[in-house]
Amino acid sequence: MSIILGLDPGTTTLWYAFLQSRGRGEAHILDVGVIDTSGQSSQAQKFLALAEDMETLLDRYRPGCAGVERLFFSKNQTTGIAVAEARGVVCYLLARRGIPTIEYTPSELKRALCGNGRAPKIQMQRALMKILHLPELPTPDDAADALALAYVAGLSNRTGEGIA
Amino acid sequence: MSIILGLDPGTTTLWYAFLQSRGRGEAHILDVGVIDTSGQSSQAQKFLALAEDMETLLDRYRPGCAGVERLFFSKNQTTGIAVAEARGVVCYLLARRGIPTIEYTPSELKRALCGNGRAPKIQMQRALMKILHLPELPTPDDAADALALAYVAGLSNRTGEGIA
Repeated sequence: MSIILGLDPGTTTLWYAFLQSRGRGEAHILDVGVIDTSGQSSQAQKFLALAEDMETLLDRYRPGCAGVERLFFSKNQTTGIAVAEARGVVCYLLARRGIPTIEYTPSELKRALCGNGRAPKIQMQRALMKILHLPELPTPDDAADALALAYVAGLSNRTGEGIA
Repeated sequence: MSIILGLDPGTTTLWYAFLQSRGRGEAHILDVGVIDTSGQSSQAQKFLALAEDMETLLDRYRPGCAGVERLFFSKNQTTGIAVAEARGVVCYLLARRGIPTIEYTPSELKRALCGNGRAPKIQMQRALMKILHLPELPTPDDAADALALAYVAGLSNRTGEGIA
């Protein structure tokens, strides 16, 4: 039994998912949500708000491990910088608490969850719906990504606290 | 009289410069150096080492403001992600201490220091040598950048603690 965190960082949003594992691949959702810093007036205020909300969540759920999306840049590089900076802040907060963090590219995540690194988004949502016994498809996409990151990190966590 | 910090983040290095301002554009170097995290085995360890060393420096010098290089990506995007993540960590540490932070692109920095946004590196080094009364050109380039960032941030700082 343990709690696993999944994190999908964006430019001004950070989607998170906390799963409670029950062993043998079974898990249920404790919390899914978003930290939105778009209303902050400066980068400094944005980082402070992000960190404060993240610390509150970490205090509440005390996850045993975390899965975080690994970044790679394609089109919008300027946006990518802001995402990477926010990712640096949250990964630092996890490191400070000694929470083991596993990184996944989108294709690694899809392969782990659907057996196919090129699976369409909808296939990942259907897999999550089935695995987590959800009444409907998890939306938006970023919430589904956070859930997938938590689930897969729990499965592959080698510290003995995971879902597997 | 106040202390200004300049920061030039890289993939596994962070060059820093602390200047003591004496008013009317006069300043002298308190410290220039580099935090090198290339020996750390994981991203988590890298962030922790970076933050620990940065906190030690901030405790020692207690800067009134900071200048940090603004990132933009050109060639190596994968390297750029690591730089942005490290930048996020240090900017968060500055924000937590309420240290006003000003961002400069390389061309803004050159314009402020040399009056020309396209000035070659050597011209910036010569300007710094003169302004800071150095016996020789500041090297390596990253150290010169950190010095330039501190000096320009001090000049343009509006909190009344700067060099100007």
